[in-house]
Amino acid sequence: VSENGEPPTAAVHELDRELGELGVVTDPVDLVRYCEPFRGRAGTTSAVLRPASIEQVRAVVAWARRHRVRLLPQGAVTGLVGASTPPPERGEQPSVVVSLERLDDEPVVDPVDRTAIVTAGTRLSRLNEAAAGHGLALPIDLGADPAIGGMAATNTGGARMLRHGDMRRHVLGLRAVIADEECTVVDDLSTLRKHNVGPSPSHWFVGSGGAFGIITHVALQLEQLPTSRACAWLIPTSDDAVLDVLLHLERHHGSWLEAFEVVSAAALDAALSRGSAVHPFGERAAPALSVLVEFTGDGGPGSADGGDAAEEHVVAALEELATEGWIEDGVVVDPTRAWLPRHAVSEGLRQMGTVLGFDVAVPRPALPSFLRRAREVVAQVAPDALVADFGHWGDGGVHCNVVLPGADRLDPELAQRVREAVLGLTVHEVGGSFSAEHGIGPTNADWWLATRPEGVQHLTRQFKAVVDPLGVLGHPGLPY
Amino acid sequence: VSENGEPPTAAVHELDRELGELGVVTDPVDLVRYCEPFRGRAGTTSAVLRPASIEQVRAVVAWARRHRVRLLPQGAVTGLVGASTPPPERGEQPSVVVSLERLDDEPVVDPVDRTAIVTAGTRLSRLNEAAAGHGLALPIDLGADPAIGGMAATNTGGARMLRHGDMRRHVLGLRAVIADEECTVVDDLSTLRKHNVGPSPSHWFVGSGGAFGIITHVALQLEQLPTSRACAWLIPTSDDAVLDVLLHLERHHGSWLEAFEVVSAAALDAALSRGSAVHPFGERAAPALSVLVEFTGDGGPGSADGGDAAEEHVVAALEELATEGWIEDGVVVDPTRAWLPRHAVSEGLRQMGTVLGFDVAVPRPALPSFLRRAREVVAQVAPDALVADFGHWGDGGVHCNVVLPGADRLDPELAQRVREAVLGLTVHEVGGSFSAEHGIGPTNADWWLATRPEGVQHLTRQFKAVVDPLGVLGHPGLPY
Repeated sequence: VSENGEPPTAAVHELDRELGELGVVTDPVDLVRYCEPFRGRAGTTSAVLRPASIEQVRAVVAWARRHRVRLLPQGAVTGLVGASTPPPERGEQPSVVVSLERLDDEPVVDPVDRTAIVTAGTRLSRLNEAAAGHGLALPIDLGADPAIGGMAATNTGGARMLRHGDMRRHVLGLRAVIADEECTVVDDLSTLRKHNVGPSPSHWFVGSGGAFGIITHVALQLEQLPTSRACAWLIPTSDDAVLDVLLHLERHHGSWLEAFEVVSAAALDAALSRGSAVHPFGERAAPALSVLVEFTGDGGPGSADGGDAAEEHVVAALEELATEGWIEDGVVVDPTRAWLPRHAVSEGLRQMGTVLGFDVAVPRPALPSFLRRAREVVAQVAPDALVADFGHWGDGGVHCNVVLPGADRLDPELAQRVREAVLGLTVHEVGGSFSAEHGIGPTNADWWLATRPEGVQHLTRQFKAVVDPLGVLGHPGLPY
Repeated sequence: VSENGEPPTAAVHELDRELGELGVVTDPVDLVRYCEPFRGRAGTTSAVLRPASIEQVRAVVAWARRHRVRLLPQGAVTGLVGASTPPPERGEQPSVVVSLERLDDEPVVDPVDRTAIVTAGTRLSRLNEAAAGHGLALPIDLGADPAIGGMAATNTGGARMLRHGDMRRHVLGLRAVIADEECTVVDDLSTLRKHNVGPSPSHWFVGSGGAFGIITHVALQLEQLPTSRACAWLIPTSDDAVLDVLLHLERHHGSWLEAFEVVSAAALDAALSRGSAVHPFGERAAPALSVLVEFTGDGGPGSADGGDAAEEHVVAALEELATEGWIEDGVVVDPTRAWLPRHAVSEGLRQMGTVLGFDVAVPRPALPSFLRRAREVVAQVAPDALVADFGHWGDGGVHCNVVLPGADRLDPELAQRVREAVLGLTVHEVGGSFSAEHGIGPTNADWWLATRPEGVQHLTRQFKAVVDPLGVLGHPGLPY
């Protein structure tokens, strides 16, 4: 083992024969793309291993055990907490990236069973193309095109979780290689929906972030694509009225409601200032909060294609909400355009300054007061900062963005004070989550250590010792 | 420790002070009801421990460790695989029942959050009464009134899983006591929907059947009660046409479809011969297969209560199915009466002879051929037997009942041959599950050992050693 945290070249090339020419990448130029995260600082690695079969994954794990090299499993590098790419500063233990991108078989979709078996490196878009031919989808909607293995490992949520649930909801079974002495294959891959046969190891790996094993195959339940879809933007009469709107829609149109997104004035202004998205309410100034709702469903009586059913329901709902006094305006917007302002928020904010993004969730009743308090606590530590939140209120999720204007170089101490203020409010004052959907990585490992209950941490470490007794699995910045 | 598999009386009474007068039951008369299963033979126990708090659960676990006594966690004794009550034959290790029935607090329902926190001993009916006041429910529908802790421990499914998923789908978090040296409380109880903070120990306990820890509290996501509901019975033109019906309903009415139950002629005849249920098609002989569908949903445009929306959709669907030639008849039946024939099947079958019940699931495309083959393989080993199946075809689930007529005393060798034939067909020929929804217990532990993959069994036992190193947790008949 070398001294600078990299495995010796000779050790890496032990794998040449087993992984083949395409399986071992060591050319510095080729390594770059495996080291540049979607968000945050790039790292370095001296090698990327690219197994193309479960047998090759086992060979990689056995090699890592022999040389005590840490394996950093990598999907499509779409993660946002620093766990997809090597750390900028190398630790003592040598580590390499294990890219699953060659485990990229065509998804096996069974349209009668409404299920699919997918290899870990296959992208969500490829699965959904294969499924769409049968009117099916894996309805997890997020602003990236992740690999299915990474989605299972990080339990991806997204903007339609209100209706469809998270990745765990769709995983029927999976296959993974753990790093015990035998490099055991835990083969719990099954497309059966009803398969209640005791402990379910598949679900021990969902959300583990690659620290418990390398997922190679995932069996998924697919959902029907709806035949009717409609969107509307609403202006609530107050921020508390947003919850009245949500509850009314759930109680009287719950089977139609697929998304319920709330965007603050600051976030909407940022999105619109880029110019690519049209203001949903025309030329008016952005209201304090705007709500985007999406209805989906099927058929009107006698109509096998859904037609305008969803739009009729949205229109009726808007009238009811106006009559109750909970909205001051509401407009139906074509679904192909409705999400553009919402999706343009992140890019718009980046043009305004340095964005500190906090992916938090709180109990739904606390959402309005949480956001009022967030502005107070941020103002105390950073008076010039702008809180520009948006989020999945139906699930309690908030992207609480704090923009530090004109900050060419971020003051790390200021950033840390803002972070402590926002996450402290979230967790300690409101009982919320410091990581709503992004999962755990180097950027939030300290909060896992500081706030997850002692028994949870203890059991996590005990289980880790079972599946990875030598500590060769997972990003070195993970807290477990 | 006594020699006959029972803990000495003195040891049990060490707990008198910590559990109080109501916490330690040793009167033989009082013990009976903890030993009589819903199905199968009664067992015996010399004591039932009834902790009333998580601290008392920890005291019980610590006591069990000291005396090497096995604890059999018990909810509402509604299980069907022999794991709820002590075994008829005592093993060498002394064991006692731990009833969670005193952990029976009023559920804490948050109607704005649409969540509940429930103690392990609280019954499903009690939760649903509390939730109904807010228009909410835990929509898991089964023919019993289990305890919430037992539902989580066994990952209950039920007849509406097609729409709502199993218990795992609704568990947001839980609290459990494991049997390691510290009797650690794994406190992962949280009502947050978006709480993606790495490994999720809650889901390690779901489905574990009490072998990994004693669940004390469960946080659940509740669902909206639909405002509109309608049912219909259909007669498919062939058994293969049932899948055409299912796919048509999913594709064009998927957002309305809540249940899709299929009943064989033998099962329907048995149900109707009892007289309590009316034939859904009047006086006609039962068709080879009958299908019960339930549609639920919300509102018509302009109508905040759902009214007849579901019925209008069912009527439209029936016309479409008839036009396609997939059904020869279909009748709308009031939802309060529609399920009566389906629910009367089990009692009707019991009056016809000795019922061997097999709770299996197969991939949906295999359902028709599986049932044809089931009749063949049963006829080979038991020519007089009647296969009277019914099941949740939408989820691939089949209750494959085999009735041995006139059998006052069951021939155990014949029963075993029938069992091997049905489960062998299910698992080895069709790739199905030998336990679709009942979970694992003494009655099917042998099939867990024979068919679960080696790596799954290995990892299960390794984890068991972490949470219960002395082997004091769970029914002694479990295979892990």
